[in-house]
Amino acid sequence: MRIIVDAFGGDNSPLEIIKGSLDAKKEYGIDITFSGNEEIIKKVCKENGFSLDGVEILDAPDVISQNEAGTEIMKSKKNCSMAVGLKALSENKGDAFVSAGNSGALCVGATLIVKRIKGIKRPGFAPVVPGADGCFMLLDSGANLECKPNMLLQFGMMGSIYMEKVMGIKNPKIGLANVGTEEHKGTELQHEAYRLLKDSPLNFVGNVEGRDIPMGVCDVCVCDGFTGNLILKTYEGVAAALLHKMKGIFTTNAKTKIAAALVMSELKDFKKDFDYNEFGGAPILGCAKPVFKAHGSSKANTFKNALKLTKEYVETNVIAEISSYLQENKEG
Amino acid sequence: MRIIVDAFGGDNSPLEIIKGSLDAKKEYGIDITFSGNEEIIKKVCKENGFSLDGVEILDAPDVISQNEAGTEIMKSKKNCSMAVGLKALSENKGDAFVSAGNSGALCVGATLIVKRIKGIKRPGFAPVVPGADGCFMLLDSGANLECKPNMLLQFGMMGSIYMEKVMGIKNPKIGLANVGTEEHKGTELQHEAYRLLKDSPLNFVGNVEGRDIPMGVCDVCVCDGFTGNLILKTYEGVAAALLHKMKGIFTTNAKTKIAAALVMSELKDFKKDFDYNEFGGAPILGCAKPVFKAHGSSKANTFKNALKLTKEYVETNVIAEISSYLQENKEG
Repeated sequence: MRIIVDAFGGDNSPLEIIKGSLDAKKEYGIDITFSGNEEIIKKVCKENGFSLDGVEILDAPDVISQNEAGTEIMKSKKNCSMAVGLKALSENKGDAFVSAGNSGALCVGATLIVKRIKGIKRPGFAPVVPGADGCFMLLDSGANLECKPNMLLQFGMMGSIYMEKVMGIKNPKIGLANVGTEEHKGTELQHEAYRLLKDSPLNFVGNVEGRDIPMGVCDVCVCDGFTGNLILKTYEGVAAALLHKMKGIFTTNAKTKIAAALVMSELKDFKKDFDYNEFGGAPILGCAKPVFKAHGSSKANTFKNALKLTKEYVETNVIAEISSYLQENKEG
Repeated sequence: MRIIVDAFGGDNSPLEIIKGSLDAKKEYGIDITFSGNEEIIKKVCKENGFSLDGVEILDAPDVISQNEAGTEIMKSKKNCSMAVGLKALSENKGDAFVSAGNSGALCVGATLIVKRIKGIKRPGFAPVVPGADGCFMLLDSGANLECKPNMLLQFGMMGSIYMEKVMGIKNPKIGLANVGTEEHKGTELQHEAYRLLKDSPLNFVGNVEGRDIPMGVCDVCVCDGFTGNLILKTYEGVAAALLHKMKGIFTTNAKTKIAAALVMSELKDFKKDFDYNEFGGAPILGCAKPVFKAHGSSKANTFKNALKLTKEYVETNVIAEISSYLQENKEG
């Protein structure tokens, strides 16, 4: 299996991305192709004593930054490392593509360069997020700000297959993000999506409220991309705000500083548990080939983990499963 | 000043509601009118040794429960304690109305029984939520699932006046909840609302992302009610999930239990700081008279605090200020 890696995506690229990829190559037995500025990649490897044996490089001198509009990947940045990697994937020069770069650009590029699975209306950005116990998928988290009911149904189906195959959750519970649990809640979009999900073979558990989403009420939380993005980022913000406050507690006085020392290692685990950067990353579900988003702040270890998940995404044939489901259930 | 209290709203009614109201009467020098089953109110007071001197009671044998559709307040439950209290407010039998009951019913009842301020399109449900430092208002948080741009502008204006007058924040920063900070982000609703807010005399700070909302980037976060409800409840859920995890940390072993004992009082404050039940409650902004929602789980002390804020809501003439703004700026 060969995974194409955007060596210039994310806050800590290229060093941490290259390191994580080479570690994954060794540990998981995958082949790596880097897309990005060949000269810099070779220089970084030389400086750090990394071997490039068996590694391919697709030279791409340009980079799309975090602040650029995602659509630029099809315009001014069509020769950036991300675009070049996605193009190589579409030409079967690899089995999957991973980037820690601009999410918007990755969603646009994945959809327009790699293309969709036949029958899928729109791919969704599908991060796996840590909850009180375990994790859940939140999709769409921003690729499609406005959605049709059928798109939400497809998100539920794709999320279900991914969470079962890659994350090992049996018969995943699918929930519809809403302002109350009763069937009549929400707008026309939710009413119709509710009906479609209820009539599908999915394990639909009904509407789920914001306060229950982190508590394991569902394994896949389905919503439009505007709502999903705000849920995801509020999630991140509240966790950060709480950790900030907690830090304050432990530095209040001598007594609390002793307490901090006593729970130091547990606190570190705690922070990690709730740091969705450390978690499952985000597949762009609905693409014709596996495209995976690692978190922007990924360091080598997190990126290595993203490559492990991508490997499982490929091996478990999620995309073939999605295609079969569409054929069997004639959705689309 | 006379405040009408729904004695049968909330999880701990009527006892805690009655107790909190009578404490507020004593402490803040306000007059109280209870709406609710007179016989039960009198019985509770007798059993607990509460004096009803100077307290009025509007007999209302019926109650609208948490699980009933909000619209029932105009139909099967038009004689419930909430409806009777709102009707009394609309007939000037009091200066404000407070309930810890069904939020949906309170929004519907406030809008249709108490009516809107002239020129206001739709009242908004406007909870004040604790952040990393200080607090912010999130509106609309569920009264209007779908909004027009002009409604978001009015929410910003009403929130600004409330936060300045009642919460004492000078020149409040108004943010528009969005999937990115750039002006072009979001759907048509956000594009147009952005333009309206930018052209207004408000202190508009632009688009705000979910992760920045709890960090004090704005004092008033404006959004449609569907988005706001999910942000608010996700907020609550993540905080609960984190506190649940943290509890686990402190009970891991003997060492962590000692740590817990050392930071016990700080942890309690921490929990309180992040418990929006303890915070500012939620005015229904845009009603012709002050209607205030106390949290459903209010105990006597929280409810007393809600009455204090309601008193300030009345005294600071927020509603007259909103009317003046509308006349001066010809919005509506």
